[in-house]
Amino acid sequence: MTLYRMSNYLIPTLKEEPKEAEVISHKLMLRAGFIRKLASGIYNFLPLGFRVLNKVEKVVREEMDRIGDQEIKMPIIQPKEFWDETGRWDLYGEEMMKIKDRHNREFGLAPTAEEVVTHIIRNEIKSYRQLPITLYQINWKYRDEIRPRFGIMRCREFLMKDAYSFDKDEESAMKSYSLHYEAYCRVIERCGLRYRACEAATGAIGGKSSHEFIVLADTGESQIALCEKCNFASNVELAPAISNYIEDNEPMNQVQEILTPDRKTVEEVSEFLKVKPEKLLKTLIVETEKGFFALLISGDSELNEEKIKKVLETGSIKMASFKDVERITNAPVGFAGPCGLKDIKIIADNSIRGKRNWVTGAQKADTHIINVNLDRDFKVDLFADIRNAKKGDICPECNNNIKIQRGIEVGHVFLLGTKYSRAMNAIYQNENGEDKLIIMGCYGIGVSRIVAASIEQNNDERGIIWPLPIAPFDVIVLPLEKEGLVFDKSIEISKKLTSAGFEVILDDRDYRPGYKFADAELIGIPFQIALGKKFKETGKYELKIRRPKESILLKEEELLNFLKEKYEGIK
Amino acid sequence: MTLYRMSNYLIPTLKEEPKEAEVISHKLMLRAGFIRKLASGIYNFLPLGFRVLNKVEKVVREEMDRIGDQEIKMPIIQPKEFWDETGRWDLYGEEMMKIKDRHNREFGLAPTAEEVVTHIIRNEIKSYRQLPITLYQINWKYRDEIRPRFGIMRCREFLMKDAYSFDKDEESAMKSYSLHYEAYCRVIERCGLRYRACEAATGAIGGKSSHEFIVLADTGESQIALCEKCNFASNVELAPAISNYIEDNEPMNQVQEILTPDRKTVEEVSEFLKVKPEKLLKTLIVETEKGFFALLISGDSELNEEKIKKVLETGSIKMASFKDVERITNAPVGFAGPCGLKDIKIIADNSIRGKRNWVTGAQKADTHIINVNLDRDFKVDLFADIRNAKKGDICPECNNNIKIQRGIEVGHVFLLGTKYSRAMNAIYQNENGEDKLIIMGCYGIGVSRIVAASIEQNNDERGIIWPLPIAPFDVIVLPLEKEGLVFDKSIEISKKLTSAGFEVILDDRDYRPGYKFADAELIGIPFQIALGKKFKETGKYELKIRRPKESILLKEEELLNFLKEKYEGIK
Repeated sequence: MTLYRMSNYLIPTLKEEPKEAEVISHKLMLRAGFIRKLASGIYNFLPLGFRVLNKVEKVVREEMDRIGDQEIKMPIIQPKEFWDETGRWDLYGEEMMKIKDRHNREFGLAPTAEEVVTHIIRNEIKSYRQLPITLYQINWKYRDEIRPRFGIMRCREFLMKDAYSFDKDEESAMKSYSLHYEAYCRVIERCGLRYRACEAATGAIGGKSSHEFIVLADTGESQIALCEKCNFASNVELAPAISNYIEDNEPMNQVQEILTPDRKTVEEVSEFLKVKPEKLLKTLIVETEKGFFALLISGDSELNEEKIKKVLETGSIKMASFKDVERITNAPVGFAGPCGLKDIKIIADNSIRGKRNWVTGAQKADTHIINVNLDRDFKVDLFADIRNAKKGDICPECNNNIKIQRGIEVGHVFLLGTKYSRAMNAIYQNENGEDKLIIMGCYGIGVSRIVAASIEQNNDERGIIWPLPIAPFDVIVLPLEKEGLVFDKSIEISKKLTSAGFEVILDDRDYRPGYKFADAELIGIPFQIALGKKFKETGKYELKIRRPKESILLKEEELLNFLKEKYEGIK
Repeated sequence: MTLYRMSNYLIPTLKEEPKEAEVISHKLMLRAGFIRKLASGIYNFLPLGFRVLNKVEKVVREEMDRIGDQEIKMPIIQPKEFWDETGRWDLYGEEMMKIKDRHNREFGLAPTAEEVVTHIIRNEIKSYRQLPITLYQINWKYRDEIRPRFGIMRCREFLMKDAYSFDKDEESAMKSYSLHYEAYCRVIERCGLRYRACEAATGAIGGKSSHEFIVLADTGESQIALCEKCNFASNVELAPAISNYIEDNEPMNQVQEILTPDRKTVEEVSEFLKVKPEKLLKTLIVETEKGFFALLISGDSELNEEKIKKVLETGSIKMASFKDVERITNAPVGFAGPCGLKDIKIIADNSIRGKRNWVTGAQKADTHIINVNLDRDFKVDLFADIRNAKKGDICPECNNNIKIQRGIEVGHVFLLGTKYSRAMNAIYQNENGEDKLIIMGCYGIGVSRIVAASIEQNNDERGIIWPLPIAPFDVIVLPLEKEGLVFDKSIEISKKLTSAGFEVILDDRDYRPGYKFADAELIGIPFQIALGKKFKETGKYELKIRRPKESILLKEEELLNFLKEKYEGIK
């Protein structure tokens, strides 16, 4: 292996905070010289950025190969005709980047490759004997985001691993799905990241079953409900919401009207009345093709549209217009309440049952009522789960409380069924000579996104903290004097570590120690070996560990053994 | 490593010759299931094709890293503004695929990346201390060929390694150039291919020095002059043409006119007169900005426009019009000769000096003259090298004869100078604090093209013959019975070979032996191990070698040792 020297390796670190960056991974990738923007949502990966990207790619490749997936390479420019077969040329619309060649034929820059891979399979697979088979590729994908942001997290050109499984029946397809689920867990574990595999909605891509792989980070765009006792984790919108209420022992107090001039929202009312939002009972009027419904949830909850659709057995739902709300509730918007509501069905979230003495709208302008109680003051037609899960709810799989955590989606697996094989006529002959549709699954990992997600999860005020398996280098050697014994010994130990199989970069630049340490911490190399005065006095190497922040003095042999132990199972 | 099984590995071999394919590599890649066409000039790489592509990519990466090049990844979609800075947006014209995003901004799909890499460097490099530096990437490139053909040899989407060196002066730039020249030699040697590094013209990309790396194959589009004794090799148009004439001992015969009705071309005249083309002296009239010139070359030579321009010190040259030829030579076109030519300078190729008794046009219709001799019958104003080198010429570096050979260009190195740094203002500060233009070099290897070139060079009537280092698998194990001892032992030996580090595929399909052998030879695996009757009788493995066609019986240990020896230095 080569020993790299910072004096001629392109690591253009920046002292100043880049103004264009909003999230920490974007800021740090720019500051530490991992990426540079070429155009909106389009980035150059500089040497350090490429090294990390390449390491993640290798882990992904090894885990796909391990489960027998076959690697191929599909074109990035894909003819329109295939996208027309499934209707996705129009469906993607402006999100797919489109191109015309010199003969005026239309192509799309692949945002994904279901169409092309299904085309390969319908041409080459004839018999059940050739199934199951999974093809995958690691290649650049394109999505013309309206507003690209967050650096390589939501950009227009990104590196993605996309795999597609083809099976003869549901049972076999479920096996392929599980294999990929497990492989994805291994990929993210091997990258050294904390994550959860979550039940997810299938969305526009279609299909029957789906899981998202979420790298936990407070800055993430995804919200998940998870249990720290059992393994439960779910997209927050999909998780069953089970209230953790203890039967109120409060006596039912006397109903009382209170003037709340201009206070309409939960925040305004709870602040004005000095009660917690969870004591407020929100009354929301929605319109469906079956008519209007009143929905009751507590002030600290969010309605969940998908759950309500299911409960009401309706395909579409929208908030009622102000005019309808006023007609139905006899009150200006913001002052509705359940008491005295007529000619409308009232659906309450399950959590409404346990609590007493609610605050509700009074059905008249600028007025709320306190001490409203179920059954005594209002009736409910149906109790159901109609809200998003929230912190403190009961885990649906054990009796622990759930947490709500933010994170970044880095992988997604889908059991597709026959959506694409039907549209594109991908069939096989079964044991009885009958033509059958192939059952598909598709599985994506954002390779470049894992790089950004790792930083969102692992950083401090000094810079990036790379997990060992995907750090651009394992060790950075810092000679703190620019010549003599310290410098010579720095080269010597760098070479020894390189021979021992470690990836080493030597900071041989003529800068002061403080500057070198700052750069080393910014780019996030897991282990720093500094040689200076202490080395001359003791002959020992000062090993600084990036996390947990720690510093130890070691003899050469101890140093080698220490690092070998740290990298056991990684190298 | 995984043991692969053909029963569920996608290798869709074809029995029939694909009609769309013109050249052998294209035919065989389709027949052997390595690639499939998705659109004109756009291909899917199926698993076997990907494996070879990936092996070539690895070799390239290792050799680039070895010389200290730094790998990066530049976007495939590159904003127009950078291409405008060098004028290449217009220069490329329709050959560059162009795209507009949803905000109507224009991008090109990269055919190469001088502009973007120079942009990176001008932003990040400030001082001579940061030089030299070479950045490279391995990424898909796009060229909208008018008529894509020959499969992945001349296609629209191809995998290319492109490197760019940045130096402070010519001397240092020349060192970078040499490093890449040598690395390219190692890449092609390590891929197991016969090739030549040839002096080449710099062409439209600009620059001062240039070499092409040509994989030798009779079906190639490039022609090179090479010496088999020394290392000389050159693009045929660039090679000095040094005639191998032996001073004629023939007596000068009597000039004689002969009627040659309607015979104008070299072929027609030499056939009619029963003389070899090399006895004919062609007289060609050209027009330049300095007026008309008569050029003399032998009938088996080709004029070389670039050489003539240099000799005549003129920037442009064209064949004279028929009218001018008739006026100058006093004869219809096809019957010009040097005898009695007036008011025009006569430039003869050096090779004209040695020979006697030429056949020339007679300056009158339907007539030639034989036994024309230099100095006695015509005068020459200047002798010079004005033709392409040809077979039998003298090597300019030793006294051997040269050969003309066809081949496929797989790599090209250019010393660019300051063409791009000047256009884009890529400067550095030298030791004296002065701003200087950076000196650039660029270096390309066609990774996907090497795959095709390997097949053009290595194939027979039965299929592909992969060089060991880039074969998709090292060994194919063929159980010739579908169950019992032979089948069990086939799995056993496959696993042992896999554990020993070989890449093994087991043909576990339920087909007859002839069919399996045919597929094994078609896909070109270097070593076949067949287990059938002979194995049951002797306990020995039949090892069939793809090239040289050979078959030997070996015990297990002998087999392992044999293969280890073959792959020494490769694994």
